[in-house]
Amino acid sequence: MRIALLGGTGDIGRGLALRWAYDTDHEVVIGSRDPERAREKADEYETELDRRGVDAAVAGRENAAAVDGADVVVLAVPAYHLVETVETVAGELDRGTVLVSPAVGMKRDADGVHYNPPAAGSVTRLAADAAPDGVPVVGAFHNLAADRLANLDAALDVDTLVVGDDADAVERVTALAEGIEGLRALSAGPIANAPEVEALTPLLLNVAANNRDHHRVGVRFR
Amino acid sequence: MRIALLGGTGDIGRGLALRWAYDTDHEVVIGSRDPERAREKADEYETELDRRGVDAAVAGRENAAAVDGADVVVLAVPAYHLVETVETVAGELDRGTVLVSPAVGMKRDADGVHYNPPAAGSVTRLAADAAPDGVPVVGAFHNLAADRLANLDAALDVDTLVVGDDADAVERVTALAEGIEGLRALSAGPIANAPEVEALTPLLLNVAANNRDHHRVGVRFR
Repeated sequence: MRIALLGGTGDIGRGLALRWAYDTDHEVVIGSRDPERAREKADEYETELDRRGVDAAVAGRENAAAVDGADVVVLAVPAYHLVETVETVAGELDRGTVLVSPAVGMKRDADGVHYNPPAAGSVTRLAADAAPDGVPVVGAFHNLAADRLANLDAALDVDTLVVGDDADAVERVTALAEGIEGLRALSAGPIANAPEVEALTPLLLNVAANNRDHHRVGVRFR
Repeated sequence: MRIALLGGTGDIGRGLALRWAYDTDHEVVIGSRDPERAREKADEYETELDRRGVDAAVAGRENAAAVDGADVVVLAVPAYHLVETVETVAGELDRGTVLVSPAVGMKRDADGVHYNPPAAGSVTRLAADAAPDGVPVVGAFHNLAADRLANLDAALDVDTLVVGDDADAVERVTALAEGIEGLRALSAGPIANAPEVEALTPLLLNVAANNRDHHRVGVRFR
């Protein structure tokens, strides 16, 4: 499968790119508004994979070019860039492409980090509203600590929650997630249930901030 | 320590009463608006404990009488009865008593269960606002499946999150929680962070509804 990681130069994009390239045979393409930066990061990931004995080709392209021919497009951009990013690549998306939304709206104050959803109700809903008709959107990968994900020496042994209204798209993303070693995907139902999924991310940050030895904490449902 | 469980005749109250009576030496008092019902349930719990070889005295009283002399008062009542319950027992509370709020506001629709906080921002904040001055409130035990908790044959191996603004009160509730075998308490910070903690409960219900073998699901942070 070909996976385009828009915002693949950022923290969560880096982690997903490395894990998929390391653990699976999927083809990974890094997308960025700046194609130079995309190629730079792709080279950097290739070097790290090579150092670990994995000969994987990671491409780096401008966002719209990265999306062309991708089976799955992960919107690994901050929530406030999401709609603009989807609009930029809309011409390259078709009904065979699944969009994945891992972003969360949060605000930080003196007490901690709080869930701050957009007016649409959730970032996943925002992505679904921005997507061209017929292109399914799935929310996933919201609650993974980026630096733990990007550290291939770190065991995951955590869950990610998947929400979506299109059963085939949910199935595809679930399989993608479970291709990553130590990651289990659980369904939280339709996109209407995304707010509680996204709210888990600030909770994890608050748990990390208030307990020793939980700096890159994840969650397992049991 | 003496623990009063107001609403101790309900699901979560039953679970906490049985676990504390079974796993610890704490004195458990069941509170209800109806003292007859409180005594009936207390007898029922005593019988179950006796059947398991534990000779624990569980008292059952009207709410205000249950609170008298308690070190910790757990408000195991539905969110919409919370303020009324605190007001009923306010005269018996003093600065040495810690109030514990495990309730969550939720609404269910065709898609799943959603977090539905009161205007105060969270149920824990509602309890804090209703409590007499100087009586500390701690949020905890929101995310435990009631029937798993009440089944002493079921292993817990899950976490509960604790929020509070009074460090001593948080410490007392943390110790109480960890007296229950298989239960670990983690801090999520001050009461301002309660919404994300309470929102975990509808998420758990959605995970339970959308995955096989997760009917009484809890969570472990790792």
